Amino acid sequence: MMRARDLAVEFPTVTLDTPALEAARLLAEQDLPGLILADEDGRPLSILPGTQVLRLAVPHYCQDDPALARVVDEAHADLFLRKLGGKTVRECLPAQPRELPMADLKATVLELAALMARTRSPLVAVVGDDGRLVGAVTLQGLLDHVLEL
Amino acid sequence: MMRARDLAVEFPTVTLDTPALEAARLLAEQDLPGLILADEDGRPLSILPGTQVLRLAVPHYCQDDPALARVVDEAHADLFLRKLGGKTVRECLPAQPRELPMADLKATVLELAALMARTRSPLVAVVGDDGRLVGAVTLQGLLDHVLEL
Repeated sequence: MMRARDLAVEFPTVTLDTPALEAARLLAEQDLPGLILADEDGRPLSILPGTQVLRLAVPHYCQDDPALARVVDEAHADLFLRKLGGKTVRECLPAQPRELPMADLKATVLELAALMARTRSPLVAVVGDDGRLVGAVTLQGLLDHVLEL
Repeated sequence: MMRARDLAVEFPTVTLDTPALEAARLLAEQDLPGLILADEDGRPLSILPGTQVLRLAVPHYCQDDPALARVVDEAHADLFLRKLGGKTVRECLPAQPRELPMADLKATVLELAALMARTRSPLVAVVGDDGRLVGAVTLQGLLDHVLEL
């Protein structure tokens, strides 16, 4: 039977001080389903969905009414990510901290799936006995296994 | 300036009657960030995050307490997706319908980003004047463009 240790893959982390623009690049370049935020000792603090980085770059009035975005800012629409300049991951954190989807090396496939279902996160952080990140299990990796692709 | 019509990529759809197991396979095989549910005329009804399919397969008591999953069901953990057998996408829909992230062909990059940020969906359905799905813009595709990868 597979366990988290078998399904975990290497996964990059960001810290609170990582520039938000660098976090966005990491998401895009490595095609990640989200970002794992860890402290300086490599202990996971939070998992940010990719859309969370956008929430920092898109003005609030546009999020309240996306149709406004077209009218107001058309000339600069392609450049909106510049608003991330100077901001860090710290500022990307949601106001309400969310439950961290985290498992130990012995977690079963069902346990990992339950964590993803419960937290609606396509990404679970896997930690060793010392609480430090060992890797991550993605929804894709989990489905590939249970569907035996 | 780029618009939704330039960024949209072909995207498969599921219907209410698609078997849930087939939907899970589609997610895994095509590495999709979510599923677009459309009616028989190709009009988008909803976008399901990948984790929503898991919510149907994982017993409720495990979602309430993922650690229970290890104790109770260890012997069959790898086989939990069998619970999807016979179920359809109709049964995967969340109890509360969510706002559908949908844009027309002329939507700007900022408008698409605002929709993703607002609905926390890494996927926006793009429809033509007749309301039928033309394609989808993914968070990855959008970031690739605004970061000029």
